[in-house]
Amino acid sequence: MKYVYTFGGKSAEGNAKDKNLLGGKGANLAEMCHLNLPVPAGFTVTTACCTDYFDQGGRFPAELESQVLDALRKTEATMGMKYGDPVNPLLVSCRSGARSSMPGMMDTVLNVGLSSTTIPAMIAKTQNPRFVWDSYRRLIMMYADVVMEKAEGRDPAKGVGIRKLLDTALDEYKHVKKCTSDTELTAANLQELAESFKRRVQEELGVPFPDDPMKQLWGGIGAVFKSWNGKKAVSYRRIEGIPDAWGTAVNVQAMVFGNMGDTSATGVAFTRNPATGENTFYGEWLINAQGEDVVAGIRTPNPLNNDTKNAQNDHLQSLQELMPDTYKQLCGIRAVLEKNYADMLDIEFTIQEGTLYMLQCRVGKRTGTAALNMAMDMLQEKIIDEKQAVLRVEPAQLDELLHPILDPKIEKGLTPFVKGLPAGPGAAAGVIVFTAEAAVASFRANRPCILVREETNPEDVEGMRAAEGILTARGGMTSHAALVARGWGKCCVVGAGELHISLENQTVRAGSTVLKAGDVITLNGTKGHAYVGQQPMIAATENPRFQKFMALVDKFRTMGVRTNADTPSDAALARTFGAEGIGLFRTEHMFYGKDSAEPLFLLRKMILSGSTAERKAVLAQLFPFMKSDIKATLLAMDGLPVTFRLLDPPLHEFIPHSQGNREDLAKALGIDIKEIEKRGEALKESNPMMGHRGVRLGVTYPEISETQIRAIFESAAELIAAGKTPHPEIMIPVTCDVRELEFSKKIIDAVYADVLARTGLKSITYHLGTMIEIPRAALLADKMASIAEFFSFGTNDLTQMTFGFSRDDTGGFMNDYLQKRILDADPFQTIDQSGVGMLIEIAAQKGRQVRPNIKIGICGEQGGDPASVEFCYRQGMTYVSCSPYRVPIARVAAAQAAIRHGKK
Amino acid sequence: MKYVYTFGGKSAEGNAKDKNLLGGKGANLAEMCHLNLPVPAGFTVTTACCTDYFDQGGRFPAELESQVLDALRKTEATMGMKYGDPVNPLLVSCRSGARSSMPGMMDTVLNVGLSSTTIPAMIAKTQNPRFVWDSYRRLIMMYADVVMEKAEGRDPAKGVGIRKLLDTALDEYKHVKKCTSDTELTAANLQELAESFKRRVQEELGVPFPDDPMKQLWGGIGAVFKSWNGKKAVSYRRIEGIPDAWGTAVNVQAMVFGNMGDTSATGVAFTRNPATGENTFYGEWLINAQGEDVVAGIRTPNPLNNDTKNAQNDHLQSLQELMPDTYKQLCGIRAVLEKNYADMLDIEFTIQEGTLYMLQCRVGKRTGTAALNMAMDMLQEKIIDEKQAVLRVEPAQLDELLHPILDPKIEKGLTPFVKGLPAGPGAAAGVIVFTAEAAVASFRANRPCILVREETNPEDVEGMRAAEGILTARGGMTSHAALVARGWGKCCVVGAGELHISLENQTVRAGSTVLKAGDVITLNGTKGHAYVGQQPMIAATENPRFQKFMALVDKFRTMGVRTNADTPSDAALARTFGAEGIGLFRTEHMFYGKDSAEPLFLLRKMILSGSTAERKAVLAQLFPFMKSDIKATLLAMDGLPVTFRLLDPPLHEFIPHSQGNREDLAKALGIDIKEIEKRGEALKESNPMMGHRGVRLGVTYPEISETQIRAIFESAAELIAAGKTPHPEIMIPVTCDVRELEFSKKIIDAVYADVLARTGLKSITYHLGTMIEIPRAALLADKMASIAEFFSFGTNDLTQMTFGFSRDDTGGFMNDYLQKRILDADPFQTIDQSGVGMLIEIAAQKGRQVRPNIKIGICGEQGGDPASVEFCYRQGMTYVSCSPYRVPIARVAAAQAAIRHGKK
Repeated sequence: MKYVYTFGGKSAEGNAKDKNLLGGKGANLAEMCHLNLPVPAGFTVTTACCTDYFDQGGRFPAELESQVLDALRKTEATMGMKYGDPVNPLLVSCRSGARSSMPGMMDTVLNVGLSSTTIPAMIAKTQNPRFVWDSYRRLIMMYADVVMEKAEGRDPAKGVGIRKLLDTALDEYKHVKKCTSDTELTAANLQELAESFKRRVQEELGVPFPDDPMKQLWGGIGAVFKSWNGKKAVSYRRIEGIPDAWGTAVNVQAMVFGNMGDTSATGVAFTRNPATGENTFYGEWLINAQGEDVVAGIRTPNPLNNDTKNAQNDHLQSLQELMPDTYKQLCGIRAVLEKNYADMLDIEFTIQEGTLYMLQCRVGKRTGTAALNMAMDMLQEKIIDEKQAVLRVEPAQLDELLHPILDPKIEKGLTPFVKGLPAGPGAAAGVIVFTAEAAVASFRANRPCILVREETNPEDVEGMRAAEGILTARGGMTSHAALVARGWGKCCVVGAGELHISLENQTVRAGSTVLKAGDVITLNGTKGHAYVGQQPMIAATENPRFQKFMALVDKFRTMGVRTNADTPSDAALARTFGAEGIGLFRTEHMFYGKDSAEPLFLLRKMILSGSTAERKAVLAQLFPFMKSDIKATLLAMDGLPVTFRLLDPPLHEFIPHSQGNREDLAKALGIDIKEIEKRGEALKESNPMMGHRGVRLGVTYPEISETQIRAIFESAAELIAAGKTPHPEIMIPVTCDVRELEFSKKIIDAVYADVLARTGLKSITYHLGTMIEIPRAALLADKMASIAEFFSFGTNDLTQMTFGFSRDDTGGFMNDYLQKRILDADPFQTIDQSGVGMLIEIAAQKGRQVRPNIKIGICGEQGGDPASVEFCYRQGMTYVSCSPYRVPIARVAAAQAAIRHGKK
Repeated sequence: MKYVYTFGGKSAEGNAKDKNLLGGKGANLAEMCHLNLPVPAGFTVTTACCTDYFDQGGRFPAELESQVLDALRKTEATMGMKYGDPVNPLLVSCRSGARSSMPGMMDTVLNVGLSSTTIPAMIAKTQNPRFVWDSYRRLIMMYADVVMEKAEGRDPAKGVGIRKLLDTALDEYKHVKKCTSDTELTAANLQELAESFKRRVQEELGVPFPDDPMKQLWGGIGAVFKSWNGKKAVSYRRIEGIPDAWGTAVNVQAMVFGNMGDTSATGVAFTRNPATGENTFYGEWLINAQGEDVVAGIRTPNPLNNDTKNAQNDHLQSLQELMPDTYKQLCGIRAVLEKNYADMLDIEFTIQEGTLYMLQCRVGKRTGTAALNMAMDMLQEKIIDEKQAVLRVEPAQLDELLHPILDPKIEKGLTPFVKGLPAGPGAAAGVIVFTAEAAVASFRANRPCILVREETNPEDVEGMRAAEGILTARGGMTSHAALVARGWGKCCVVGAGELHISLENQTVRAGSTVLKAGDVITLNGTKGHAYVGQQPMIAATENPRFQKFMALVDKFRTMGVRTNADTPSDAALARTFGAEGIGLFRTEHMFYGKDSAEPLFLLRKMILSGSTAERKAVLAQLFPFMKSDIKATLLAMDGLPVTFRLLDPPLHEFIPHSQGNREDLAKALGIDIKEIEKRGEALKESNPMMGHRGVRLGVTYPEISETQIRAIFESAAELIAAGKTPHPEIMIPVTCDVRELEFSKKIIDAVYADVLARTGLKSITYHLGTMIEIPRAALLADKMASIAEFFSFGTNDLTQMTFGFSRDDTGGFMNDYLQKRILDADPFQTIDQSGVGMLIEIAAQKGRQVRPNIKIGICGEQGGDPASVEFCYRQGMTYVSCSPYRVPIARVAAAQAAIRHGKK
């Protein structure tokens, strides 16, 4: 097994394609060598070696030693130096490098190879004892921490981390020596410090700091491997969804020094502006410094060039000004790299006494705006083709382009007074209000407000609509507040557990911050932060190239994208975002959040009816409202399908919760409030999510379904008469047995025949289908398909039932599940492909067995999640449906899935 | 297609094996012909014809007519009469006959063939005009009702059913004629009545009563078919689980008359006593009567013989006394039939002017006691073999043998003051109490009581234990009260919706009955009835042959039967019932229902702990209680496996609900009650069934699992040291991912190693397994089996998640689902084999792929349901586990499954 790959001197054993084996850093170092770029020589120990190392219980494979020694000889030859040599010693770094970038998550050891033998040689060679002793004390500090303590698992005697102890010792020494900065320490000081550090290491960890360069090297390699399973790395992988099995490579590379004086420097750059996408070289650098100094942000770095100058750094000299030749060389490298990679790159370089070295290059991270602009620019520049352009924008990044955001430069300097979950994108600012009523009042008074609640419920919806943003103390990413807010593309932060709301005092407290109603706060719904005061935002100006890009996207997209919309105006909005129909129209929406409105009043009256006859009479009064809502939506989506889901929520959701509202209702209905309380009590359920809802209501009260179905058919008939082309689809929710569909179909058939008879129409084109959101319906999908012409996976409920997770209650354990790696991701955010996905696959297959052309879509929250969209594409779905603001995201994700997985 | 099978004259086209085609009645009539018994000739129209009739939208198959006419000719020839003949007319009956007996659920028409042509001939032949006109008016009443109104779907003009109208007309006519009974009406009266009935039928239904015998015959056949889908029949099939697709046969048979005078009679008999199983001929008869008169119960029927005499009928003469020759003939028939069928039979006979006719025979229904005695008797008599004996007792009937019951003779005369669902078997009587505390007090005062509650919760458990029986107003067959009661074999009636409880007034009302605390009531938990006052019960004397029978059962049983038990005493009880281990020991049981007890107090203290350290300290205090419980149970089941399920319920279940208990707790803990309220609020969940419970608790608080696991291993270690053979199994509940098992296994491994180290033992035999109760765990069972050595299907929760039904909330719609035939059975009572069963099958298969010898069992409520036990057998399960009182039932069901489905 070949575990070691060398690079350097214009050649390398690997190249950029070997990322899986060499890690990103190693593969790109090899690639740069092939491009004749100045790369310090070295070698990469593969990720396969890391995996084997862990498989063997933390032991190096037997064949590794000779391979490393051979590679070291080759590196020495290329660099013209010798590792551990008493005359011309080579020093090396040991750096991690996984397949996918995990910045700062794993450990690095620099200056490896400094010892009692090599130090004098280095001093002789560099004539810079201060530099050498400083490098040595850095090695001791890093090595003791990373290798001896963390990787080799030693406990310091005092129980405090060795790094911290040595840092403190350094500070004390400076204090004694009356120095304010490291640079004031002399070579002698640093030598003295290094010696005392070594004593300290021995005392604390019980073993001496190794003086043998080979021992140092093996320690460094092992430490990098072990850092793959360090706490930080594991939790980063959890967030980014990187598999544990990948492992990291180790890059052992000849040290070059940017801190050898004023002709030395170090810097990082992007080949194009990562924030805007502009085609200008963008970077920062520091003279006489090591790489970590740029990242650490202790000194304000210099601008790379004029293009990079800004208010904070324009008093500092650019590389372009100070080292024009080196800058020119770097510009040449930029061009070579962009041409080779056909993408924007993020590079690291070091200048050692006037000589430029490339230490890293990789595809650079970028904002959504930048991604879009670069994709379109590079397409125009013919660097990439159309498919590549479509693949260049992360679907989720489109969010940025569609919502106003907090100015990131300003936000950097702010401390949130509370943090929660990022539930609705963008930013919002306004005065604090604590009730839906106050939000509505504030809206009417033209005072933007933020609705701050323990959690929200359907009665708050009007207030949520009126507020600029929503902040809740409880609830997760799929709580009521989060669902509603994302549906509207409204800024929302949920589950900010630190919030203590006192409705009585009209105050909210988080830590030491106490705010009252009327105080202004600002939310960043993309991050989940809340700030005191009005913070500046960047307007949601639509990138002029957005439309062009989306047209390109649709060229490759094969799967349909519909929207979840409950009102004619949402339908119209979604159509502008490119929705090709409505995948989910919640017929109950018209009843939400309008306590004073007629439809809700009538619905409540219906719920409180004592008999079928009474219920039918109220339904007749409700009918015109239902019909007008449905007709207007069909009109807004004229020519496109509109899926109407029959009444879904349990009836008790509509009984007023507050005493006041109950009293009003009792008065309006002319009944005793006790009647309302009694009915509310009777309808109460232990687990309403699995209670009397969906088609179960239709079975108990067929007259409700009948009224809704009649409203759909009559609306369609009237539109046909007016020359329109309505495409209604009737969807039965919460089904678990085909007999529920048979039951519903009887009602539909009867109403259909009746409407035809009354209108004289020969036919109305419509489809009957079902939600698949209960595991049993998925398992018995062949039966369901005997009636259903389409399936729409309700992935929210399907996920709830498949996991046995109530989405309102995952707050108690979801964090533990993610942190302890029981789950890789919250299944309410992205489809659980192994479990829920298996049910979807079973259902799709069984459905197609019975009805080969059955239309299949999803309408859960995950319809707008790119990974889920890709999954749906692979399942051969007809469409996905998501909230209006996520329609463009789904379009991009669907196009990318088609490019990646479609028939070639 | 042959649709018609003839019988009569010592031969027949079918026989007893043709039940599916000819229905039970038709097949047995044919069989009796083969046995040379006196059966009036006739023919059977098959069930297949019924199915085709419905498939063709209620039309007879084309070939039927000629087949019926041929069969009619044959019947005429055998009987020596002619249908519709003006001289010697044959009259026939049209009776239903399904595969499985559905007594009284479908329609019958008698005397078919009476018309203006045949009436005079009948009068001439019988010389009994009164009899003929009475038969005619009966025909009109029956035919108008069954055929013309119900089957042919005519609405009577006045909206009142024709049967009722004619009944009223009959009563009015008698009033006018000053007759008190039908028998006082003369032939002329009856003729006049018949004419007026015909006019009335024409007026009401708009068509004349048919005078054409052939028209009558076809109407009768069609009406019987249609009655298969009548309301009564459909709802009976729902209860009995008879498929709609079976259809009914129609038996057209020559009429014989038991009402032709004092040498005529009719009767029903059982070849052995159906109540006790005693080997004596048992029956009732009426002189000069038709079959319906015996059933209707207007006259007290005569005893068949001396053996049948009792207090109510011993003043009446027996058939043995009055018609000794006919009785002797009947005794002969009894012997022939029992020999032929090798079972106890239920027979119907008619004596027409001294001649005996057999009208029906079928295997007779019997009580559990009778079933057991007959099986053992017939085995001894060598009529049946051992397998047949085992198959002869319905498993569910064993319940009767294990619980005291209300005296059925007395109960017949009682009217329940309220009805609910039969949730716990047997009978119980006692004074009404309304709270758990009152129940405990009453128990201590040695006053048997019935706990009457809206519904129960875990805080009531102590009171439930103390009460003789439980009656609740809410909840279904799987509500808390029902589950707990059945688990204990305690009498319980739930969901008695008519109950209105006033805790304030200490009264309970149902309709007009108002009872107060201290009033005595009696429950019949097998029927779901509640009676006012103390009603007499029959003691639970165990049938002496029970043990013998169970030994026979175990000879054939291959699947294990364990019990669900939470205490050493339950374990000991279950062992006496034959449990072969514990399939489910709920470790949380020790915390239930003892508000004053130390363990619950400590658990609450733990829940209110602010830190892991504090929690661990309290767990250390809890540890000895856990261990003592576990050790005693292992000891009680020494040598047999005991499956300990780690903590399952959400923690908020343990926070006291009542203000008083909360105050006590706050005082005892020395904290502010607000702390308890806050924690209770924080733990509250919207859908607790899918909340923070089971292994999710273990992930969040590994220290809880650790303590429980330590208690298990230490108990086992101590028992081993004492020379015992404990077999603990550790079961992880509510899992949905193998990583939950990996997480738990790490804790188990660590504790195991530690206990071995401390005790010096080399090993403790144990197994680690998981509940499969979440659909995702079933779908990913191959993964689960990589860690789990056994699966235990938690069919309660699995059913909840698979259907999306909260078992506490199905009250709102389950009745509609059953009545509207959306579901055939409540899936919480018997496993839903198509949906939940599919998941079980998937899981079992996948589990065996990875671990071929994986132990598989179920421990849901359905573990004691015979149909579910059979399903488990067919799935190749290792065992079923059920509550102690259901262990014998499961043993019988498992033995029967092995006999029916086992390898031959």
